[in-house]
Amino acid sequence: MPVRRSLTLSDYLPYLVNRVGTILADQFGAETLAPHGLSIAMWRVLAVLAAKGRQRQIDLADLTSIDTSTLSRIVTRLVRLGVATRSRSASSNREVVVALSPNGSAMVARLIPLAYDIEADASAGLSSEELAVVKRCLRRMYSNMRSRNAAAGARPKRIAV
Amino acid sequence: MPVRRSLTLSDYLPYLVNRVGTILADQFGAETLAPHGLSIAMWRVLAVLAAKGRQRQIDLADLTSIDTSTLSRIVTRLVRLGVATRSRSASSNREVVVALSPNGSAMVARLIPLAYDIEADASAGLSSEELAVVKRCLRRMYSNMRSRNAAAGARPKRIAV
Repeated sequence: MPVRRSLTLSDYLPYLVNRVGTILADQFGAETLAPHGLSIAMWRVLAVLAAKGRQRQIDLADLTSIDTSTLSRIVTRLVRLGVATRSRSASSNREVVVALSPNGSAMVARLIPLAYDIEADASAGLSSEELAVVKRCLRRMYSNMRSRNAAAGARPKRIAV
Repeated sequence: MPVRRSLTLSDYLPYLVNRVGTILADQFGAETLAPHGLSIAMWRVLAVLAAKGRQRQIDLADLTSIDTSTLSRIVTRLVRLGVATRSRSASSNREVVVALSPNGSAMVARLIPLAYDIEADASAGLSSEELAVVKRCLRRMYSNMRSRNAAAGARPKRIAV
């Protein structure tokens, strides 16, 4: 393939993904989360805990795509709100384990139907086959990038000047 | 459709989109942008200016999905780096117009092939048909969310307690 010298944004995958991710987060955040004192990052943590159960803080960072220092601050806010608990692991005192509180579980249960509403709004007009292709391809893309990162380490890639 | 009471993350579109968007931004940022003193947000501004030409700062916020106050700080950094210029519009003194400098154009031209490399890495194993479906659906989702927002205004959506 020849080297392309200009970027067509409307056909550039990372641009399209970022646009959709941002508008989903902005609208769900403003309409649904803000009235409950939650940010989109706080919601992501609650949603992962609801879907996957209690987690070591380090695994929670991975599952939410939130870096560990930001995540630690978010968990502190969730604990103060009374929707999550943080404790030392029974097996290792160095491991921090985060879980939903009963109030947190109840809040997530009330938010889940609204989370599915926004998914439905975003995918209006798409056939179920198209939506299935999109989801499968997004899972594959994520897995591609994970493997790539594992293979490459933190290799910086300098451009020729 | 019955109300779903649990969230299956691996099949929830906003989760999948956020995962892919974050890993793309993290890897492109660490490998390609950081060695040149650029953040992912700075890159997004440069890429939009390269693709669409000089822009009013307010349009640039819309095209990059970056809120206006954050964007203003990013443009300041780009101007200090010597890769962008900021000036008053000829037609209205209240409008700020941002453009690439010659150094900025040259930098973007060198980064574009690497930007396409990461798109290719992400979409490895997808057929060109699948990739076309993904891109078309992402454009549609963005457009769905834009229309939804225009229709709804900033309507907060409280959950029943």
